[in-house]
Amino acid sequence: MRSSVQVPVQRVHRSGVTSEEHDLIATEEPLEIRIDGRGVAVTMRTPGHDLELAAGFLYTEGVIDGPDDISAMAHVDDPSDPKGNTVDTVLAPGVPAARRHKADRASYASSSCGICGKETLDRLMTMAPPLTRTLEPATETLMELPSRLREEQVIFEQTGGLHAAALFTPAGDLEVVREDIGRHNAVDKVVGWRLRADEVPVDDRILMVSGRVGFEIVQKALVARIPVVAAVGAPSSLAVQLADRAGMTLVGFLRDGRYNRYTG
Amino acid sequence: MRSSVQVPVQRVHRSGVTSEEHDLIATEEPLEIRIDGRGVAVTMRTPGHDLELAAGFLYTEGVIDGPDDISAMAHVDDPSDPKGNTVDTVLAPGVPAARRHKADRASYASSSCGICGKETLDRLMTMAPPLTRTLEPATETLMELPSRLREEQVIFEQTGGLHAAALFTPAGDLEVVREDIGRHNAVDKVVGWRLRADEVPVDDRILMVSGRVGFEIVQKALVARIPVVAAVGAPSSLAVQLADRAGMTLVGFLRDGRYNRYTG
Repeated sequence: MRSSVQVPVQRVHRSGVTSEEHDLIATEEPLEIRIDGRGVAVTMRTPGHDLELAAGFLYTEGVIDGPDDISAMAHVDDPSDPKGNTVDTVLAPGVPAARRHKADRASYASSSCGICGKETLDRLMTMAPPLTRTLEPATETLMELPSRLREEQVIFEQTGGLHAAALFTPAGDLEVVREDIGRHNAVDKVVGWRLRADEVPVDDRILMVSGRVGFEIVQKALVARIPVVAAVGAPSSLAVQLADRAGMTLVGFLRDGRYNRYTG
Repeated sequence: MRSSVQVPVQRVHRSGVTSEEHDLIATEEPLEIRIDGRGVAVTMRTPGHDLELAAGFLYTEGVIDGPDDISAMAHVDDPSDPKGNTVDTVLAPGVPAARRHKADRASYASSSCGICGKETLDRLMTMAPPLTRTLEPATETLMELPSRLREEQVIFEQTGGLHAAALFTPAGDLEVVREDIGRHNAVDKVVGWRLRADEVPVDDRILMVSGRVGFEIVQKALVARIPVVAAVGAPSSLAVQLADRAGMTLVGFLRDGRYNRYTG
């Protein structure tokens, strides 16, 4: 399972020069996430760190509360799925049925996604109350994050085609970085990494993302109790609204020695 | 309904200079698409051109075949939805029940999205057979498209937060451009514009998108029968695979006087 693949490409220049070459592009494959053998979600993702992605998804969508809610999680061994595009989860016996059903309605609330049955902002705030813990990273610390993130974006450097998410300590030390063709997947992977290390909530870290920040990123950060979200790109109106209500610090356009602080 | 909103922001510079200002950010609001009063999809979108978005979505997801399949489409007049975030559709009496049910399973097959019940690549090819019509735009024509697109990205210029999609004639003339916080929405809006003008399939145009191109963009273009898709950014592996099978020309990294031709 590789995160990038080589394909033949015809490079064309304005001068008229054309050459036949090879190009590395980011791999995109579906991942079906199952609970007790039943598919509850499919996400188009870049293969790698699939268990982190699945665990992070179940956590940020409110299906599980922590690592103890998972009895077992593994790729399904199925000859008809040679690429390993299915992960099954056995929930702990104590997980209430209502939570299991939640997965049926859970789906990425993205600007590119049907979110049938998605909680409204009000209902989400019930599920995830405002944050009580804040972090106050120093201005100089925040300014250093984009270059630290960029140094770690290995696949992006090769393909130009991936989003990245990373967790940093308040002092600016990198804890974990993940790349994915879907920005929400990258966030779920870093949160899932923490969950699998038995270290949730993530209320002691800064979440840094490589692109823009919409509602769904803030939503996932809120459920994971992340107090500071910083983005290289622009925020959306709903991201700012939710961060404001949640007591979360939201920083955008963090690049070139400046940033905008929208909330917090 | 505005496509951008002004919010207070604290601008911070490395020098330590901080100022309280206002920033324009892209509006993100949910749009619920209904058929005969029943919600079939919700997408986070930038308000504006909602009917084009809804019509384009129903078309590129295979629920409708053309404008004649829609008897009526309008925003729902509901005091509890003052922002106009709901569009209802009355399908023509002749639309088979099987197609209506399709909407239940339809959802954006995005890298950020649950695509429960989504057709596999094989099944999709059954729904949308390979293209039979090709276009061969001149190299110089393709080279000019990014700057033409950028000139029209009004909201992006203000907010830095939107994707754009545009249709161009084979000679490089701009037909329509739309912006949205979701790249698939921008594509659905331009396709929906054509549908509402009774001009589908879109087999005589180049689709240009401002960012990367994944599976779902190629899928929508295929259903709309668009023969050439050109992107400023990188393609994904699945986008290249689908374009190849579909007989579609896929161009990526179209910027700075060069491009890569992946298929076609």
